[in-house]
Amino acid sequence: MITDRIRCAPLLERITSSDEAASFIRDGMTVGMSGFTRAGEAKAVPLALAERAKREPLKITLITGASLGNDLDKTLSEAGVLSRRIPFQSDPALRKAINAGEVMFIDQHLSETVEMLRSRQIGPVDVAVVEAVAITETGGIVPTTSVGNSATFAILAEKVIIEINLAQPLALEGLHDIYIPTRRPTREPIPVMAPNDRVGTPFIPIDPSKIVAIVVTEKLDSASTVLPPDNETRSIAGHLTEFLRHEVDRGRLEKSLQPLQAGIGTIANAVMHGLIDSPFERLTMYSEVLQDSTFDLFDAGKLDFASGSSITLSKARYRQVLDDIARYKPRLILRPQEISNHPEVIRRLGLIAVNTALEFDIYGNINSTHVGGTHMMNGIGGSGDFARNAHLSIFVTKSIAKNGAISSVVPMVPHVDHTEHDVDIVVTECGLADLRGLAPRERARLIIETCAHPLYRDRLADYFAEACRRGGQTPHLLEKAFAWHIAARDTGSMGGTVTDLNEARVA
Amino acid sequence: MITDRIRCAPLLERITSSDEAASFIRDGMTVGMSGFTRAGEAKAVPLALAERAKREPLKITLITGASLGNDLDKTLSEAGVLSRRIPFQSDPALRKAINAGEVMFIDQHLSETVEMLRSRQIGPVDVAVVEAVAITETGGIVPTTSVGNSATFAILAEKVIIEINLAQPLALEGLHDIYIPTRRPTREPIPVMAPNDRVGTPFIPIDPSKIVAIVVTEKLDSASTVLPPDNETRSIAGHLTEFLRHEVDRGRLEKSLQPLQAGIGTIANAVMHGLIDSPFERLTMYSEVLQDSTFDLFDAGKLDFASGSSITLSKARYRQVLDDIARYKPRLILRPQEISNHPEVIRRLGLIAVNTALEFDIYGNINSTHVGGTHMMNGIGGSGDFARNAHLSIFVTKSIAKNGAISSVVPMVPHVDHTEHDVDIVVTECGLADLRGLAPRERARLIIETCAHPLYRDRLADYFAEACRRGGQTPHLLEKAFAWHIAARDTGSMGGTVTDLNEARVA
Repeated sequence: MITDRIRCAPLLERITSSDEAASFIRDGMTVGMSGFTRAGEAKAVPLALAERAKREPLKITLITGASLGNDLDKTLSEAGVLSRRIPFQSDPALRKAINAGEVMFIDQHLSETVEMLRSRQIGPVDVAVVEAVAITETGGIVPTTSVGNSATFAILAEKVIIEINLAQPLALEGLHDIYIPTRRPTREPIPVMAPNDRVGTPFIPIDPSKIVAIVVTEKLDSASTVLPPDNETRSIAGHLTEFLRHEVDRGRLEKSLQPLQAGIGTIANAVMHGLIDSPFERLTMYSEVLQDSTFDLFDAGKLDFASGSSITLSKARYRQVLDDIARYKPRLILRPQEISNHPEVIRRLGLIAVNTALEFDIYGNINSTHVGGTHMMNGIGGSGDFARNAHLSIFVTKSIAKNGAISSVVPMVPHVDHTEHDVDIVVTECGLADLRGLAPRERARLIIETCAHPLYRDRLADYFAEACRRGGQTPHLLEKAFAWHIAARDTGSMGGTVTDLNEARVA
Repeated sequence: MITDRIRCAPLLERITSSDEAASFIRDGMTVGMSGFTRAGEAKAVPLALAERAKREPLKITLITGASLGNDLDKTLSEAGVLSRRIPFQSDPALRKAINAGEVMFIDQHLSETVEMLRSRQIGPVDVAVVEAVAITETGGIVPTTSVGNSATFAILAEKVIIEINLAQPLALEGLHDIYIPTRRPTREPIPVMAPNDRVGTPFIPIDPSKIVAIVVTEKLDSASTVLPPDNETRSIAGHLTEFLRHEVDRGRLEKSLQPLQAGIGTIANAVMHGLIDSPFERLTMYSEVLQDSTFDLFDAGKLDFASGSSITLSKARYRQVLDDIARYKPRLILRPQEISNHPEVIRRLGLIAVNTALEFDIYGNINSTHVGGTHMMNGIGGSGDFARNAHLSIFVTKSIAKNGAISSVVPMVPHVDHTEHDVDIVVTECGLADLRGLAPRERARLIIETCAHPLYRDRLADYFAEACRRGGQTPHLLEKAFAWHIAARDTGSMGGTVTDLNEARVA
C-alpha cells in the first residue's frame, strides 16, 4: 500500500507524473540528485528532463553523490541537458562530452561537495530529487541503496522532489544514519568513533512543505560492472595480504587490522575478496561503496561490521542481498558521503585504504583520472579523502594494460591526483612496494624492481639511472619524461608488444 | 638560579657538557630534535655531534619539527652527520647534499611525522634532544619558542637530553599546550574547538628517569629571514583583502573572517601584514608559525588570538616580543605541530589558509618544493595539511622571478604538491583567480587572464588554445608541456627578458 510508503498523509496529494514533477526544474537551474556508485539514483525525473529537452531549451548544473546507474548520465548528456556536472561520473557518453569541452565537469573530492554547498561556495541547489523507500509521518525521507549527498541536497534545496521506488524493499529502513555537521567555525566534533557508531537519524529530516512532488517508480538499480577476480587481481590480493600479515607479526596492527576502505572497481573488490582466505578476523569496513566482496566477507564470517554510503552489487548478489537485507542490517550502516569520507573520521579511525590507480610513477605519484594526462576517465571520487588521511594509503593496479602495450608504471605521471606525500604502498601483480619512510630515489629503485612489469623494467631503470646522473631530490629527464605517453597517444603503444609479452611469459 | 629552571632536584646531577650529553647518540641512531621554523631548536648537542664526526664515524637519521636555525643543518650536513633527514629543512648546504643524493630527505606533511612514529611506521627514536626553558618538579619539560614534534619525541624516545636555554625567558612558561592524541583505532576526538582552546598540559609530561643528560645553553634563536613587504607583495595582499571583503559582502564570511593560517615566508607574512589596513576585526589565527605580522596585528588591535607551533621573528621584533611575552601570553598558544596542523581541527574550524607556491600551472596545480621539477628547495611543510582541509585554500606567489626570466605561472608544473582538487584561490601581484566550482578549462582562462605576467600571458594563451584543439578535460601538449622548464634549465630563462620586462613596465 502506498500509505506504507508515504506516511505523512498531506503528502499523498503531491503524487504526480514524472513530467509534472520535472516541470519544477527549469532551464539554468542547479539540481541535486540522489545516486552514488550506480545505487539509489532518482530514476524517473531525469528521463523526463531528457524528453523535455527535445522540445525546449533545457540546460542544468547536475550535482549528485557520485556516478548514476541506468545510463542516466548517458541519456542526459546525449539530450544536451548537462551544462555542468559535479562531482563524479563514470559514463562513456558523458565522458566524451566532457573531453570535448561540451560539459564542464568539476572533479571533486566526494567529501567536499556539500561542504562547499553549505558554505555557499558553490550552488545554491534549486531543486533536489531524491529516491526514497518511504516518507515518514513527519516528512522524513528514508533513502534507498545510497545516501550520497541526498541529505544536504534536500536540506538546502528550495524544492524537493521524491521518487518513491517500490522495487526497493521497505526493509532498507533503519539502515541509514543521517548526521549533518554543524556550521563552521563553531562546528562540534563528528561523533563517529567506530564504524558501527550510529550518530544521526534513520531518515533525512526536512520540512515536508518543501516536498513539491512525489513520483512513484519501480525500476531496479543497475548491476555493478565489476569483473570477478582473475590471476592478476588474485596476485595483487596475495601481495597485500602477505604485507598485512607482516604488519601484524611486527605488532603494528592487530589481527582484526584497522577499519578497511576499498574503492569501487574490479581490483579493489578482488583485494577485499582475497581477505576471505586470510588469517585476519573480526574485520570492519569504513568505506564509501559496499560491493559484492563486503557480503562475501560477511558470509565467510570474516567481517563484523561495514559502514558505507552505498550498496552496489552484481546482478546475482543484488537480488539475494536485498531479499535478505533484514539479516545483514544489524551489521550495516549507510551514511552521507560527507561522513563516510570525512577526513576527521578517516584519520581518527586509522583506516587501511585501498584504491585503484590508473598509473603511477617511479616516485609514487598517482594518476587516478586522466588518460594520457588529458582525457578524463571517471574522476578522483573518494580516493583523495581516504589516501590523504588513512593509516595506510594503498594503491593497486595491474602492471600493464592492453596486452602489454601500456605500462601502468611510468617515468612521470602526466596528471597527479595523489602526491608522493600521500602514498604509502603501491601494488601490482608483480609485487608490493612499501614506500613508508623512503626518500624518492629509494622509492624509485623499489618500485621499478617490485612493481614494474618485466617488459618495461629495464627501460624504467635506464631512465632513472640517467636522471640520477643529472641530480636532484627527484631526478627526472624533463625532455623524456612523457615520451612513453606521447608514443601511446600517437601509436597506441608505449613500446611493449604482444610478442615481447609472450616471450616474457615464457621466460 | 638554575634551580628555577630545573625544579626536579634529582635531575640537577644530570647537568653535563654537550660532548658528554652527545655521547648518548651513537652511529646509526635515529634522533628526534626540537626546532620548528628556526625556533626553539637544540643548539649545543648538534654542534658536539658535528665535532665528534671529525674524529669517528657518525651518521644519524635526524627528525625534527621543521627547519633548524643557527646554521645547524649546514653544520651537520657539512660534517657528514646526516644520513637521513625528516620532515623539512631550509638550509642551502643541506639542500645541496640532498640534491646530490648524499642525504636521503623524506619530505613529509608536518602533521604526519609523529603519527607515523607513534604507529611505528618509521623510527623508533633512540634519543630525543629538546630545548627547554625549565623542567618542572615532576620532570615535565617546558619548551621554548617552538613545540614542533618535541613532545612525541620525548615521550617515545628511550633516552632524552634536555638543553636548558637561559636566554629564553622563563616567562614563556604557560604558553604551551601539550595534547597527544590517543592511539588508533580507539582515538577520541581532538578536543580543540576554537583557536584559544587549551586542552593539554603546559609541559611535556615524561618519566624524568628517561632524562639522561641536561646541557645549559644561552644562545638565541636565529632571526627570521623574512623580507619586508614590497610593491608586489602589497599588491598580492590587496587582491586578497578585496576578495575577502567580497566574501563578507556576500554573507559567506563574518567580518571576523574564519581562523587564519599563513605559511612561513616573505609573501605570506606580507599578506597577513596587509590585514592591518583591512575592514576586518577580531581576527584569530590557527597557524603553524607565528611571524612578525602576528604581533603587528596584535599591536594594531586587529587580532584577538593566535595559535601556532612556533614563534619566528625578525631580529628587531624578537627582542621586543620576548621581553614583552607576559603581555602577549594571554592571547597566544603554542601547540605540537600534530595539533596545529591536524586535518580534523583544520576542517572543523574552517580555516582560511594562505601558503606560498613556487609556481602553479594554468589548471591550478601547485609546485611548492621542486625547482625545475627535480631539485628540492625546502619541503612541503604544513601547506598540504592546511590546503587539503581549509575552508579556503589560497596560494600566493609573485608572477615572475629573476627579473622576468622565470614565470611562476606555467603550462604544466613538473612537480605537484597540491593538486587542482585542493586549490581554491591563486593570487599574484597581477590579480586573483577564484577557482571554486570551475572546470579545468574555465580555470585556465581565468588564471592566464588574471594571474600570469603580461610577459608570458600570450604564450600561455597560445599553449592553452592549441591544447584545447586536441581536446580533453585538462588539455595539454605533452611534447611542449615542459618546454619552458627545459629552457630555464639550459639557458636560465623561460624566454622573458629584462628588455621585454622594461617595455612591459613602460606599456
